[in-house]
This record gives sequence, C-alpha cells and structure tokens, in this order.
Amino acid sequence: MKYGVVIFPSKKLQDIANSYRKRYDTKYSFIPPHITIKSSFEATEEELTTIVGRVRQAASNVQPFLINVTKAKSFQPANNTIYLKVEAAPELDMLYQALHGEGTHKTDVEYAFSPHITIAQELSNDEHLDVMGQLTNLNVDHQEKVDRIHLLYQLEDGVWTVYETFRLGAE
Amino acid sequence: MKYGVVIFPSKKLQDIANSYRKRYDTKYSFIPPHITIKSSFEATEEELTTIVGRVRQAASNVQPFLINVTKAKSFQPANNTIYLKVEAAPELDMLYQALHGEGTHKTDVEYAFSPHITIAQELSNDEHLDVMGQLTNLNVDHQEKVDRIHLLYQLEDGVWTVYETFRLGAE
Repeated sequence: MKYGVVIFPSKKLQDIANSYRKRYDTKYSFIPPHITIKSSFEATEEELTTIVGRVRQAASNVQPFLINVTKAKSFQPANNTIYLKVEAAPELDMLYQALHGEGTHKTDVEYAFSPHITIAQELSNDEHLDVMGQLTNLNVDHQEKVDRIHLLYQLEDGVWTVYETFRLGAE
Repeated sequence: MKYGVVIFPSKKLQDIANSYRKRYDTKYSFIPPHITIKSSFEATEEELTTIVGRVRQAASNVQPFLINVTKAKSFQPANNTIYLKVEAAPELDMLYQALHGEGTHKTDVEYAFSPHITIAQELSNDEHLDVMGQLTNLNVDHQEKVDRIHLLYQLEDGVWTVYETFRLGAE
C-alpha cells in the first residue's frame, strides 16, 4: 500500500492552484492541491500504527507557522513541472527531517526538499513554454497559516484518500 | 463554503466501490467512496471552530464499531442511485443524531438516514436496469471496523478536501 504525507493549503490557495491544474496537471483528479512533505512510499497495513505514531510525533514537535507563496516557477531542465513556490520555512524542514530520518520508509522518488504546489506537469515543450509565458508575471504573494498535516494512502485507481490529520503542536 | 461529514471505509472496500464508480458514478472524481453522515451544508469559515468542536464531540461519544456491507441496492423509485447497503448500527445513528440535532446546520438535502456507499448515479433507465442486472447477485458480505470520521469542505471545482479526521472514542 502506498502512503504519503502532505499539507493541504487553504481553500483559497487550492482554488487558485486548481484553476491551472484543471487544464495542465495530469494528476488533477488524483489529489487536491497540496504541498508534499513525504512523497509516496510503500508500507504494509501492519506498519500503519508505527507510521501514524511517527507522523503524530513529527506534527506535535512543530508549532503552527506561516507559509509564503510567491510566484510560479518551473523545475526545468530537470522536468517540465510548473509549481507555485513555497518559500523556505524552518518548520517545513523540521517536518521533512522528522519523516525522512533513520528508520523511516524510503520514498519512491528522492529529490532535495523544495516545498511547492504543483500546478502543471507532463506538458509538451510547447505547452510548457506557453504556460510559463502566461505565468511569468503572475504575482501570487499569498501568506497563510499551516496548522495541520495529512497522512494519505492511495487507492487502486490512483486516487489519494486521507487516513488521518495531525494538528501541529498538539499534545 | 460547503462542508460535510463522512466515513471513508477501508482501502479494500473503496477499491470494490470504485471498480463500479469509475464507470457509473458521475461524482467519481469529486470524492473517494464514502458513507455520508451529514450531507453538504453551507457555513462560513468563522463558524468552522464551532463545527469542528461539534464533530469532535460527536466522535468522542461513540466507540469504534463494526459495519456490515451486504449487497447492492437501488433507491428506485425515488431516484436511480445504486449503492452498497451498510446495515443499520446504533453507532451510525448516534453519529447522525449528534450532527443533526438542535443548533446544527441544515443540510442541502434532507433524507431519512439510510447509510450507504454510492456506486452509481445519474444513470439512464436502461443503464440502471443493466447495472442492477449485473449487481443483483453480487454478494458483498463485508465487515470492517469504523474508528474515525472526516470533516470535509468543497473546493470551487466541486472536489472535496479533508479538513480534519476525528477518532471515535478519543478524549
């Protein structure tokens, strides 16, 4: 079974992201807009209790914090994914570290942590050029509070379901 | 903003439901398979704290319990929706009552509570006949434990996002 850990931003930010994702993101129907903290990893249902404990621990050690979303960028040349950049925050790193340390499950894809909200992916070169052209001058400049993280699992059809939410700083 | 309260069943049951929903449920891409406890209701973000408190209270007053899913049925003649029937359980009624009592928000649609997992809707009469024909002899006979409920909100594009999970019987 595949699991993952994400932040779902506010409805406002999700609606902004979806206005692009609807047209340009091939994963649009599999998961609402999100910031990935730990990308998909394979684990058995028997391991779930341990995983839940670890995510709860990670969440309780971090207080609610503000994120700043500034502009649209592309991961080119690595790939054609376009995203809303989430500025670095120590709390994001703490969450990432707590879920990638010794004894945690290895994720399917290993990148350096670069917090973001994907709005377009698997574009052709022409589409990428076109979408980036539209977005270059997009000034998002959005700030909001993050006070929870979500543990998800993936269904057979690829759609992600929330297993549990964890409030930051909770006992 | 629209909110709702549901139970997401196990991955196994969700996968079974989705094998039908993918073809026959027009709401397939808006929400994973679920048992509705309180259908969509309108509330402001300012009311969210009160709503969260109420759902938490409802969840904490009910201990984890078993549900039995037995067979596929149709809501005909009321409508053409086909669903997996969830057998009555006192805990389901307790959750329903706690979220529909005095002082709670009025839902957009009022039906008598009949717990179910929708697998097909908005079918033509011919489709309905055809799908029911396939499903009449489907013996699901599935039992599983419910230990949490989920408070959701709806994005502009119609997709539902989980705001928070609440464990049954939790302090």
